[in-house]
Amino acid sequence: MSTAGQVIRCKAAVAWESGKPLSIEEVEVAPPQKDEVRIKILFTSLCHTDVYFWDSKGQNPLFPRILGHEAGGIVESVGEGVTDLKPGDHVLPIFTGECKECPHCLSEESNMCDLLRINTDRGEMINDGKSRFSINGKPIYHFLGTSTFSEYTVVHVGQVAKINPEAPLDKVCVLSCGMSTGFGATVNVAKPKKGQSVAIFGLGAVGLAAAEGARVSGASRIIGVDLNPSRFELAKNFGVTEFVNPKDHNKPVQEVIAEMTGGGVDRSVECTGSIQAMISAFECVHDGWGVAVLVGVPNKDDAFKTHPVNLLNERTLKGTFFGNYKPRTDIPAVVERYMNKELELDKFITHSVPFSEINKAFEYMLAGEGLRCVIRMDA
Amino acid sequence: MSTAGQVIRCKAAVAWESGKPLSIEEVEVAPPQKDEVRIKILFTSLCHTDVYFWDSKGQNPLFPRILGHEAGGIVESVGEGVTDLKPGDHVLPIFTGECKECPHCLSEESNMCDLLRINTDRGEMINDGKSRFSINGKPIYHFLGTSTFSEYTVVHVGQVAKINPEAPLDKVCVLSCGMSTGFGATVNVAKPKKGQSVAIFGLGAVGLAAAEGARVSGASRIIGVDLNPSRFELAKNFGVTEFVNPKDHNKPVQEVIAEMTGGGVDRSVECTGSIQAMISAFECVHDGWGVAVLVGVPNKDDAFKTHPVNLLNERTLKGTFFGNYKPRTDIPAVVERYMNKELELDKFITHSVPFSEINKAFEYMLAGEGLRCVIRMDA
Repeated sequence: MSTAGQVIRCKAAVAWESGKPLSIEEVEVAPPQKDEVRIKILFTSLCHTDVYFWDSKGQNPLFPRILGHEAGGIVESVGEGVTDLKPGDHVLPIFTGECKECPHCLSEESNMCDLLRINTDRGEMINDGKSRFSINGKPIYHFLGTSTFSEYTVVHVGQVAKINPEAPLDKVCVLSCGMSTGFGATVNVAKPKKGQSVAIFGLGAVGLAAAEGARVSGASRIIGVDLNPSRFELAKNFGVTEFVNPKDHNKPVQEVIAEMTGGGVDRSVECTGSIQAMISAFECVHDGWGVAVLVGVPNKDDAFKTHPVNLLNERTLKGTFFGNYKPRTDIPAVVERYMNKELELDKFITHSVPFSEINKAFEYMLAGEGLRCVIRMDA
Repeated sequence: MSTAGQVIRCKAAVAWESGKPLSIEEVEVAPPQKDEVRIKILFTSLCHTDVYFWDSKGQNPLFPRILGHEAGGIVESVGEGVTDLKPGDHVLPIFTGECKECPHCLSEESNMCDLLRINTDRGEMINDGKSRFSINGKPIYHFLGTSTFSEYTVVHVGQVAKINPEAPLDKVCVLSCGMSTGFGATVNVAKPKKGQSVAIFGLGAVGLAAAEGARVSGASRIIGVDLNPSRFELAKNFGVTEFVNPKDHNKPVQEVIAEMTGGGVDRSVECTGSIQAMISAFECVHDGWGVAVLVGVPNKDDAFKTHPVNLLNERTLKGTFFGNYKPRTDIPAVVERYMNKELELDKFITHSVPFSEINKAFEYMLAGEGLRCVIRMDA
């Protein structure tokens, strides 16, 4: 029996207030409107950004809200005007979109769509400014336009990547955000050449995905930098060949790296968001050709500061957002790199819980345990 | 009668002390040693860097010295081990070198040769730590390894670009430094695509050479930024289509440019060395794809400072040195671009004086008059 055009009643994990455990509730999910897609979520994983907005420190609190933005699912129905997706398609919802019409989408270089660029403050669909989720008629806010902690969700078609139906959704769901962000930062932006050296600042999930990008690119040395030495052992599985803990040295880590590498690494990728790490990541690249790429999101009042001669000596500093991937155009090919066994994803998935135990995923992340916890919606 | 192997007595303009007019003296120029070339200079032009070290404000004063580094000449004789140059070759001496053996020379991306990188403090040849110039046995210091304010000079072979003998040396001499620096910053580093917009900060000779690079690249808009409105009229001859004087606005010039261009220019090139202009040049490029290139040399204690989100929004910040040109490998092709009438040089040469009046060239520059004054050595 088709559910198209009908309200669907299903389970969702609702964040009622900041920092309190999510509560599994029965919600009503309205049919997709113009340019929208309703997706049956099969697997979703937890990313730091979910925890950040759940905790809502320094953010405008917006509750009740359905969080979640790394996921894989199957299209249940499509709204008016949606022609490139149909029920049954396997998809990844993405927290930032691609309208295919704005100057950014038309540029080969940008993925920062004017219409569907990430908006953490918005809690409704852009089509009509309303939520598609409700409980007893009371609206529940969306999150990043994805809200994947629900058995069904409604997403703008510009935020949906159609992928190979043979790809295992319980694995490729992590490509919705963190793994693509780190991997793309290296392969699309830092672009190390075969045999070059790469420093990775921050060995969390995104940093290790950046290391995976360096490994796939044939980097000869991958130097991991982290304040937490317990991350070094795990990082070896991601191609990291050497480790530097800034706490172990009485000089700036950029000087330590310059000494290790005869003047600096060829490429660096910063995945912590610490302003000091950003400056170190830039200053540790070799003059003449070094490229530093910033990924981590800084505090609001941070200032990046360096002596301009560090730039004039032919270093390049770039930032990236979602690994410079255009969600609809590029993510299907990243899934193919996994299918071709070029990109390894399984090693990022260290935990798995049934939907009923979603709060455990929060506990793992808050304890700094593992990399990604996949939540099984049907369990 | 060959002068090879002999000491040559000739005229040179000697700077005896900081800030005092140069004095034309008869000097002795020793024969070139291993890996050196003796060049008969036919034309030399005056660049700000000559004036800066003549004035020696904030620099280690090194006198008596023969200044000069933009020039064109003919090889008179070569020292031991020099195989790729011979007497009669037309050449440009260059203030920074290319040994062709160090990691920078072997890198496709760098022109910052480890052996022959610009060294403003050095007053002798690197081969034996001695000067080739003397007056009555007393050594006169070299400058930048070029010292072109002399009828004959001795230069390391790694600092000599062999060019098309049909190229007029009184024109292409300006490619030794300033014009290549600005032109290369645009065409090699900023790399605007046809139809893109480019902002140029600083409309002196280097900035106008950067504008020339934008014109040759087919930029649709070239926005000149300068505090001195008298430069705007001249700049029109260099393809500059619009002008912004930061003094005319009560908001930061990057905001003015963003408003003029619907979010920012595609590329910017900073040619002033002012730290505030560097920051503006970076922040005025469009998010998603904008590239800012720093050329101007800052003060020693300046700090480049920006909010890291300006980077994370996919802007690129790069610095360049000598327009990223490798002196021996790349400059001959820039001369060819002039010969093919693609790159215009004649418009940069606003004055010309005989060697006996070299101090007039300093006066023009100190008065901010014109762009380049060519000094005719045989006059």
